[in-house]
Amino acid sequence: MKPKSVRIGIIGCGNVGSSLINLIAERCQTIVRRSGLSLEVASVAVRDLDLERNVPIDSGLFTNNPEEIVTDPSIEVVVEVMGGVEPAFDLVTRALQAGKSVVTANKELLAAHGAELYALAEEVGVDLLFEAAVAGAIPIMRPLRESLVGESITRVTGIVNGTTNFILTQMSENKMSYSNALVEAQRLGYAEADPTADVEGFDAAAKLAIIASLAFGVKITSADVYREGITSITANDIEFAGRLGYCVKLLAIGEQELIDETPQVGVRVYPTMVPLDHPLAAVRDSFNAVFVEGDAAGQIMFYGRGAGGRPTSSAVLGDLIDAASNLHKDHGASIGDLESISVTSIDSLVVPYYLEVEVHDQPGALAQVAAIFGEHKVSIRSMEQEGLGDEARLIFITHAAQESNLQATLLDLEGLGVVQKVGSMLRVLGD
Amino acid sequence: MKPKSVRIGIIGCGNVGSSLINLIAERCQTIVRRSGLSLEVASVAVRDLDLERNVPIDSGLFTNNPEEIVTDPSIEVVVEVMGGVEPAFDLVTRALQAGKSVVTANKELLAAHGAELYALAEEVGVDLLFEAAVAGAIPIMRPLRESLVGESITRVTGIVNGTTNFILTQMSENKMSYSNALVEAQRLGYAEADPTADVEGFDAAAKLAIIASLAFGVKITSADVYREGITSITANDIEFAGRLGYCVKLLAIGEQELIDETPQVGVRVYPTMVPLDHPLAAVRDSFNAVFVEGDAAGQIMFYGRGAGGRPTSSAVLGDLIDAASNLHKDHGASIGDLESISVTSIDSLVVPYYLEVEVHDQPGALAQVAAIFGEHKVSIRSMEQEGLGDEARLIFITHAAQESNLQATLLDLEGLGVVQKVGSMLRVLGD
Repeated sequence: MKPKSVRIGIIGCGNVGSSLINLIAERCQTIVRRSGLSLEVASVAVRDLDLERNVPIDSGLFTNNPEEIVTDPSIEVVVEVMGGVEPAFDLVTRALQAGKSVVTANKELLAAHGAELYALAEEVGVDLLFEAAVAGAIPIMRPLRESLVGESITRVTGIVNGTTNFILTQMSENKMSYSNALVEAQRLGYAEADPTADVEGFDAAAKLAIIASLAFGVKITSADVYREGITSITANDIEFAGRLGYCVKLLAIGEQELIDETPQVGVRVYPTMVPLDHPLAAVRDSFNAVFVEGDAAGQIMFYGRGAGGRPTSSAVLGDLIDAASNLHKDHGASIGDLESISVTSIDSLVVPYYLEVEVHDQPGALAQVAAIFGEHKVSIRSMEQEGLGDEARLIFITHAAQESNLQATLLDLEGLGVVQKVGSMLRVLGD
Repeated sequence: MKPKSVRIGIIGCGNVGSSLINLIAERCQTIVRRSGLSLEVASVAVRDLDLERNVPIDSGLFTNNPEEIVTDPSIEVVVEVMGGVEPAFDLVTRALQAGKSVVTANKELLAAHGAELYALAEEVGVDLLFEAAVAGAIPIMRPLRESLVGESITRVTGIVNGTTNFILTQMSENKMSYSNALVEAQRLGYAEADPTADVEGFDAAAKLAIIASLAFGVKITSADVYREGITSITANDIEFAGRLGYCVKLLAIGEQELIDETPQVGVRVYPTMVPLDHPLAAVRDSFNAVFVEGDAAGQIMFYGRGAGGRPTSSAVLGDLIDAASNLHKDHGASIGDLESISVTSIDSLVVPYYLEVEVHDQPGALAQVAAIFGEHKVSIRSMEQEGLGDEARLIFITHAAQESNLQATLLDLEGLGVVQKVGSMLRVLGD
């Protein structure tokens, strides 16, 4: 059977775009055999036409005008790998309106405008696929959209930023300080010169917005996500965590909650103490994983490379073959309209907490500290004390407590004479 | 929009079938909202009509004649959850021939007749979906068929039998003997009264045949799989493994190989030493996981519940919604014809080995043993020796060696006067 030729336009030819063009060329025979499709790269939009690019296509196919791609009627599928919200939003919108299917790896775009774009794709009856936008090569969007469409998902917990996971792994396994681990990550190309988007959790928050939207069928944007980064994590925190049977991971957590009998969704990114026998504890270095808990399916985890040109372009290629196969068909598995929902305040979070408090080593110090916990209904599960000269360090793990009560406890502890310093507070991954 | 009603026939109403019927009832509103479909259970075939079943459907829908389901023209999707090769093969074949889409959870059926059934479904133009047949609730078939369709997969490594993983976890974490761990597994319902299918690796071999067929696009049946079980694993093996930085897992391994420049596929199930920092090492208790290595995607792992009525029926429901959505459409993502391929002999396997040898504790013993290794070109990576009264136990880890050479080494060691006993041999997970 003669393969069906499908003309593709690619907007962006950086790391992912050029890997994709190479991968399409390398795998063309297999693609024909498995899908009956011949993917033809018809046009590639780039910023700088003069830049040398190591891709096996004719140089005449490059343009510096991405408009040409979204307006070319012969192009049926558009791949957007330029990144950023604008002009990507405008270009993707116009491609969809023109009846083209779109594959994107752009997390900022979807975290800001996902709901509008999913609805537009549904209305037009074309595909909008974005496996590569979250957790690179790991198939997580398709399983959420298709395999788990009948499942009631209660919680998603992800390690979705490879840079911070690499830094935390270095701090844990090689006893590095945060700043040394960051320098090492920068040296290896895992962290940018300005690491803010990674280490402050912005990248993870954008990915969580996309995952939670799909998992719960609701409208969530980056701005809805409560966010704390890893910059204040110390080598001490990591060491104490290990002694208590935990490791520290930057988690992106989305959960369905019932607050005053109203369904809400909690979406939060913060460094978390993860029990060492939890599958997420084994996710090391720059790897990513998404842990999904469902009512019938139980616990499921997806693990793999979250970034990098080849892994990401592998995910784009899977989507591209799917979109090209689906052309001119009815679309069953679209996302459709996402529901609006309230996002819970961090104050209503209920989890166990880890707390480090330095006190003057004098009789009655612990009793005074413990009294403050009790006043705010925060119950202590375990305490360890160690001497520090004239001071003592108290390490507490609480039972599940409400965030607002824990914050009130911290405030009162700060004002207690016997307290030298209220150190780190870390949330513990709850059941 | 009025939901589209699709009539479903279910063959089998055991653990999975009854969970599925309950799940369809529980989740009907969500299914309508997300897919626009109303799934109507039209008929359920059971062996014994008199048995009480705790499912929310009219008792008049039960039949003890599954023929009625495959011949009823109003039924568009058939779910086969009866298990076993016959009569399931006959019934599924006839359902496909009648133009019905089929969802099955039957690993024995697919491990024996997968290639014929995939080709038949392709020819007729209907869906044959089987996510639940391998690794229960874990979405692995769909990612292999769709997300990774453009990927060149080099190896799949699975923990696909929950019973043996539970037993090995008990032996490792609670220092149990094999037989005590088996009794514990039976007490908890993880192992059958006759555990042969699990502990001898037959169950894992069937699942590997299905996974390898999809991953590599080739015809593989259970009978092609080299298979060793876990019955001879001792508490000592597990303890030594731990000391050397490994755990012992029953792995199902499929890999693409080039033997004399001819592509072949190796498919093997055996207990394996897995490095403790490998993601598969963190798969504990009765959980399953499939680790996939691809040329572009890198390492990906899928983790979750491999068995149980609710997890398995969750996977069936995902397939069922997909099949019902796809009715009367062109089918792009079918498996189609699998290629025939040679299966490599175990003799050509090249991995590192773990070997335990008990020798008489006399000067020159190690030299004699080492000489035998050398004669067969098996190079020793590390050796530990410990005293056992008049004997000494030698624990070897070899560099990657060829299986045939290792077997020849074992044979010669058996005949060596200084050797008291050749103990356990375990393969080590290679790179």
